[in-house]
Amino acid sequence: MSAERRVMKEPVYHGMPWEDAYGYAQAVKVGNTIYISGQLSHDDSGKLVGPATVDASGKVVDSSTMALQMQTTYENARRLLAKFGASLDNVVEEVIYVTDFEAAFAVAGKVRKAAYGTDRPVCASTILGTTRLAFPQQLVEISFTAVLPE
Amino acid sequence: MSAERRVMKEPVYHGMPWEDAYGYAQAVKVGNTIYISGQLSHDDSGKLVGPATVDASGKVVDSSTMALQMQTTYENARRLLAKFGASLDNVVEEVIYVTDFEAAFAVAGKVRKAAYGTDRPVCASTILGTTRLAFPQQLVEISFTAVLPE
Amino acid sequence: MSAERRVMKEPVYHGMPWEDAYGYAQAVKVGNTIYISGQLSHDDSGKLVGPATVDASGKVVDSSTMALQMQTTYENARRLLAKFGASLDNVVEEVIYVTDFEAAFAVAGKVRKAAYGTDRPVCASTILGTTRLAFPQQLVEISFTAVLPE
Repeated sequence: MSAERRVMKEPVYHGMPWEDAYGYAQAVKVGNTIYISGQLSHDDSGKLVGPATVDASGKVVDSSTMALQMQTTYENARRLLAKFGASLDNVVEEVIYVTDFEAAFAVAGKVRKAAYGTDRPVCASTILGTTRLAFPQQLVEISFTAVLPE
Repeated sequence: MSAERRVMKEPVYHGMPWEDAYGYAQAVKVGNTIYISGQLSHDDSGKLVGPATVDASGKVVDSSTMALQMQTTYENARRLLAKFGASLDNVVEEVIYVTDFEAAFAVAGKVRKAAYGTDRPVCASTILGTTRLAFPQQLVEISFTAVLPE
Repeated sequence: MSAERRVMKEPVYHGMPWEDAYGYAQAVKVGNTIYISGQLSHDDSGKLVGPATVDASGKVVDSSTMALQMQTTYENARRLLAKFGASLDNVVEEVIYVTDFEAAFAVAGKVRKAAYGTDRPVCASTILGTTRLAFPQQLVEISFTAVLPE
């Protein structure tokens, strides 16, 4: 590709080992749009926060940490947005992938309102069940699109 | 976040009770792009149109209303787009989530062409199976991205 | 919709029979953004490359062609992008849907780095398990958003 067709992309990272292993950015800003990779519930050291209990086959047997995982996931998205001088207020769309739909649906309204800091977040939202996410103990992953003022 | 970083977002709603409970907008316009939340088959009163038959455990046992659910889902997207003076002709991308893939694939071409009003809708489209959507009787959910002229 | 609200959309195709049957474009460019439909592992004649082995019920029993399917999927995305004078370097976001998560996760880093031609692709990426894709023998599908310079 010639230099003329290159587009200016600004990536940000959490500094997790899997960023190198998998080869991706946690978020990429191009123009005034920020594309955020599926976020999950981990701390600064890369340790899962509120891992679900799984049986020997890797099947989840206890989803009671769903709210904690969801909260931490939003917090990780907030930290990425802050690197661009933005916040969750800039989010225009989110897609929520969950391995236990009932557990997620039971807490999502409350967790989301607290994360966005308002009873009616102004963002489009889609939620669906998935068979599996990156870690067997992971219950939720959320991707986002955010927009900065021109 | 300072006022300077705020982005102008225009939300629209169907007026469904779950918009308040979950805390989201049915669609958000920012700049000339419209992000539409996963739409589903419901009427103005919030009642599912063509609910699937489920057994005691919530498992779908009859997906014969797939086409009706899909039609109604596109109609609900059309109603949201109309609030922005737009139509399904403005859609550039859709993602179709279905709980019964075979049933969906059997009718999707016909339903989609009728909804878009053309044999070759000019939109990118992705379809995939999901383990679960918001309502156990729900067979399909579709999210959209649409663009208005500058 | 009046002509005034119409948006200029440029579609591209692989020339596959299912484009007509389903009624969609493989990718649509609007403004400087390219929305790419879920790509899969097929050749120019529409034949699956590296089909998984499935049993009589359609269940996958051998996912050993995952890497080949993933490589071919990226190659098909590259071919679409080339029609716009772009390359995988223009990708800002991808969503990877897989029917065998462990098999996909085991090869995704290596395959992705080779496809993007760099150890650290500058794109947001989300991967999740799905119950089913278009073909029973299909293990992976990837949708993309790419951006051209203004």
